[in-house]
Amino acid sequence: MRAKRESLKILINAIRENKVDDDIIDLLFLINSINGVYTTSSCSGRIGVIEEPKIGAKPLSRWLLKEHRPVTFEEVKESLKNAQSGIIFLKVQPPIFHVVAESMEIAKKLHEIGLSSGFKYTTFKALNKGRTLVEINGTEYLTVPLGRDGKTLISDEYLEFSVNLGNRMLERSKSRLPRLEENFKKLKEVLGEDELFYEIMED
Amino acid sequence: MRAKRESLKILINAIRENKVDDDIIDLLFLINSINGVYTTSSCSGRIGVIEEPKIGAKPLSRWLLKEHRPVTFEEVKESLKNAQSGIIFLKVQPPIFHVVAESMEIAKKLHEIGLSSGFKYTTFKALNKGRTLVEINGTEYLTVPLGRDGKTLISDEYLEFSVNLGNRMLERSKSRLPRLEENFKKLKEVLGEDELFYEIMED
Repeated sequence: MRAKRESLKILINAIRENKVDDDIIDLLFLINSINGVYTTSSCSGRIGVIEEPKIGAKPLSRWLLKEHRPVTFEEVKESLKNAQSGIIFLKVQPPIFHVVAESMEIAKKLHEIGLSSGFKYTTFKALNKGRTLVEINGTEYLTVPLGRDGKTLISDEYLEFSVNLGNRMLERSKSRLPRLEENFKKLKEVLGEDELFYEIMED
Repeated sequence: MRAKRESLKILINAIRENKVDDDIIDLLFLINSINGVYTTSSCSGRIGVIEEPKIGAKPLSRWLLKEHRPVTFEEVKESLKNAQSGIIFLKVQPPIFHVVAESMEIAKKLHEIGLSSGFKYTTFKALNKGRTLVEINGTEYLTVPLGRDGKTLISDEYLEFSVNLGNRMLERSKSRLPRLEENFKKLKEVLGEDELFYEIMED
């Protein structure tokens, strides 16, 4: 239970510092209020423009725009003015939840919930002693190169087409969140409330 | 063991019908020759052009070009002439292996092998009674919309840029295959040879 206590404190601090996506705070609270279950890093799904100095060099990449809602053509266009070096991408990433289960039996339930809520990339990411990390993940990924070293190689027409496509993919992936929430409510009925959660929330 | 026998027969038939990517046949044989381990659907990594009638409507999509090696600008350009309806994408997908382990202990070893060979999306995909499916998967995914309903929205310069980027990602993802093979050879030393494999291969 120490791990859950630590994770909850990290979550609450992150919320205080506005580092948690608004549209999934309630869902994260719901998941963490369930006995034997807690979340680690999660994201409500996003679209944005990123600059990557090298393929796969994630730590060195830089977001020029990052939103958890559909973006406008103008926002994207404006963000491109700040491009400097590396390959510029328009990226869409679906919601992703990292949920730890304190038993394999619970982990299997989380896995089922992910899949039956439409998150088709739901997997068991790590199996440790007495704990299993389930990744609930969608399939709506888009990675569109736009140019390099501050210079774009695309027309406005193409950019608008790609931004519209990306927005639709983001909305599609987020449209599954209410079903996910419903399924976690049902799980809570089965597994019960965790007193630890309410104890920490009251502090 | 019945499941492994069936899987091996499917693999051998697929090889006879030229449905298995040439560059991973030896690796698939190696994996299947290991005690307590067998493969199901796998791919050596590919790049191509695909038409998708609707977002996420995989069964209705149509490959206009699909190769397990880098492609030329001309091949891509030529394939685009056959575009008809739906959104046209340039896609890159890294190698992916589905490996079944006949115990959780072995599954954990497979998971370690995937990660330590550089396949960072390696996960436990399904946990069934006595069997665990491990997905060994890379991160080099590229999904570039090129146009819609037979009409492209890109310049030759942009297309060449994207194809070059895609080829580099494909090569990068495939460059990890020798390390993966080395690690499976070591696993074979630990787990031993499976007589069933040699029995079926002799048939």
